[in-house]
Amino acid sequence: MHRVVIVGGGFGGLQAALHLKDAKDVEITLVDRRNFHLFQPLAYQVATGALAAGEVCYPLRAIFRGEERVKVMLAEATGFDLGARTVALRTAAGEEALEYDTLLVGGGSKYNYFGHPEWQEHAAELKSLEGALHIRAQILRAFETAELAETEAERDRQLTFVIVGAGPTGVEMAGQIAEIARNTRRDFRNIDTRNTKVLLVEAGDRVLASFPPKLSGRAMHSLVNLGVTPMLNAAVTGIDPDGVTVGDDHIRSATVIWAAGVLAAGVSSMLAEAAGAETDKVGRLIVEPDLSLPGHPEVLAIGDMVQVRGAHALPGVAPVAMQMGRYAAKLVKGRLRAKDVGPFKYKDKGNLATIGRGRAVAELPPGIRAWGFPAWALWLGIHLFYLVGFQNRLLVFIRWGFSFVTHGRGTRLITGEQNMP
Amino acid sequence: MHRVVIVGGGFGGLQAALHLKDAKDVEITLVDRRNFHLFQPLAYQVATGALAAGEVCYPLRAIFRGEERVKVMLAEATGFDLGARTVALRTAAGEEALEYDTLLVGGGSKYNYFGHPEWQEHAAELKSLEGALHIRAQILRAFETAELAETEAERDRQLTFVIVGAGPTGVEMAGQIAEIARNTRRDFRNIDTRNTKVLLVEAGDRVLASFPPKLSGRAMHSLVNLGVTPMLNAAVTGIDPDGVTVGDDHIRSATVIWAAGVLAAGVSSMLAEAAGAETDKVGRLIVEPDLSLPGHPEVLAIGDMVQVRGAHALPGVAPVAMQMGRYAAKLVKGRLRAKDVGPFKYKDKGNLATIGRGRAVAELPPGIRAWGFPAWALWLGIHLFYLVGFQNRLLVFIRWGFSFVTHGRGTRLITGEQNMP
Repeated sequence: MHRVVIVGGGFGGLQAALHLKDAKDVEITLVDRRNFHLFQPLAYQVATGALAAGEVCYPLRAIFRGEERVKVMLAEATGFDLGARTVALRTAAGEEALEYDTLLVGGGSKYNYFGHPEWQEHAAELKSLEGALHIRAQILRAFETAELAETEAERDRQLTFVIVGAGPTGVEMAGQIAEIARNTRRDFRNIDTRNTKVLLVEAGDRVLASFPPKLSGRAMHSLVNLGVTPMLNAAVTGIDPDGVTVGDDHIRSATVIWAAGVLAAGVSSMLAEAAGAETDKVGRLIVEPDLSLPGHPEVLAIGDMVQVRGAHALPGVAPVAMQMGRYAAKLVKGRLRAKDVGPFKYKDKGNLATIGRGRAVAELPPGIRAWGFPAWALWLGIHLFYLVGFQNRLLVFIRWGFSFVTHGRGTRLITGEQNMP
Repeated sequence: MHRVVIVGGGFGGLQAALHLKDAKDVEITLVDRRNFHLFQPLAYQVATGALAAGEVCYPLRAIFRGEERVKVMLAEATGFDLGARTVALRTAAGEEALEYDTLLVGGGSKYNYFGHPEWQEHAAELKSLEGALHIRAQILRAFETAELAETEAERDRQLTFVIVGAGPTGVEMAGQIAEIARNTRRDFRNIDTRNTKVLLVEAGDRVLASFPPKLSGRAMHSLVNLGVTPMLNAAVTGIDPDGVTVGDDHIRSATVIWAAGVLAAGVSSMLAEAAGAETDKVGRLIVEPDLSLPGHPEVLAIGDMVQVRGAHALPGVAPVAMQMGRYAAKLVKGRLRAKDVGPFKYKDKGNLATIGRGRAVAELPPGIRAWGFPAWALWLGIHLFYLVGFQNRLLVFIRWGFSFVTHGRGTRLITGEQNMP
């Protein structure tokens, strides 16, 4: 049996496992710190109460139910010994060294607070499910606190939302908060939620910079229409409990959401050190064209923690990770059958971002561009299609159907340890 | 305008507000520490991953959307001044004294650890949504840790679940955990989940003591069939991080769930003190036959924090609280229109408890008893009917339909601040 250890149950690791599980001579151990796969592109919908946690997460164990050659391990990788071909793991039962024949690492990325880790305390981010639930509680709490505010200044501070970074996540969050403000007016008695300010702060000169300028313009138009105020060429220079400083101006805001710039996860540098491999300036491992580590063909790394040597940098999105995961599976199977599969080639299937109900932009590979309702319908279909698990798909579809008709948000719960705002 | 302040958005407070909201001369302020109503009878389904949080909780603000005479306030009552007719509140915006003409308090109850508050740390309970999510994480984590355990003793400890108290909640939890154990066998590689032990510890001599002995017997039979081990006449004498002591025996268990005995919520004694009123031995306020406080007809108290003077004690269940809430609304409206509504009368509509898929017991008022599938179908229908909010009802129905066919549990997520078990 060829033992494959996969570290990380994100898009890349999951695809690798799914495409390796039918190889009868391969035994897989999928290691993750969490017991579920998070469908990251919809985490922002949890953060705004449109979807429940269980609708964007799927237990890894359930995915590989009955697959005798796939083991799921709830554990954290704490080190790599490439000589001994082992991964050091920390589990609830203690420490363990797991042997592998092929190691596949997809550790993902984390937000980069521009070298200001102290900002994180006041600016939540969306990388984890807990982050999304935390943002959800904060957004709802801001409206609740505004309703009770004793001064106009405090009311305004609670009704000011600042999103840092106008990439797809920032644009989605800004659009959703603006929609909440628009649609919850009748829930409150003391405030008019239409006075909500949603500021989208971007250091660059346009929103959705990974799209062609024309689509950025369309997105900008949709955002403004929804009531979002995009602030371009605006650099965040400080974040404190009271708000955010943009350039020299301090903006009072109770809710700051961080969606700017990522770094490779810690496991990337750990692996780089073990292999004596290089990383780039955002911590991504430089891998060979077949995604292996230099000098270690048996170690593969995938997803947004890697950069292929000499290649054009790929965006840190799910399709890249999924293609890399599937390629890695094909490579491992090819090697076992002495078949050459060639280097990894990314097939760009397009780029999509949604702004709000019926509003999205899409760039499809051969220069086809779409916006507005058609782009949004495409976005909806693709995301439903890729959501893991049939039950989730149906539930999400029903919930979205309801939301579309009623403008409602089914999961507006303030949860967490502290009961009070 | 007659100002009614309702403290507590549980079953009682919610019904009172819903039945008062159409009185054009009444202005309602509904105060709760949480921004949602929890459908408590299904909290155990969240604890076992069958339902998502959003399916058993409903935002209070959404319930009273557009009702201009109903204000929802996220606040905690910190004191009562019955002379000045004010409630002291703590909100996110500070302290506030809220004036009322009629005060209605439904503060509910909390678990009583038999005078051992230190047990709470090792024995989670189901009163809050967070409690349910905590239990969910703990149950799932126990199976995960068993899968990784290095010794048989540790594996057994992780696969031993102890539920203290064989009332409806304890029986439901025990039945659900036994079903999880039965149905997740194919998810694991190292353990056989059918070796799980589910111990239901009860100090009395039968399970579901609020039911006739014959139905207790039926329930006992169903529990044993599902794989639960009921331990009757067994008193818990200690709970520690390693397990629970029953009489003189220490049982090693990683998961202890508390479902025995309740005390009235703290707000009950606070109100009793302000009014100079009596409480009974579990802290319940003794109220007049019209649910008012002695000497304070303008102050009403409802739900499982009260006991009507001289009357038979009522069970601490949702129907009692709902009937009290509706009665209180009628009383307030009657007074405004100088109509005598007479004393509160409880109409017993029966008693239901579910044990597992297709297994329940029911006692309907005129001595009609049901068990097995018919009782379970009745339980299902009634709970769906009472779930607040149409969307929830449909989603829960769909999810239950799936669960019934697939034995699946859609929301098996280990969430919380710490990522690792």
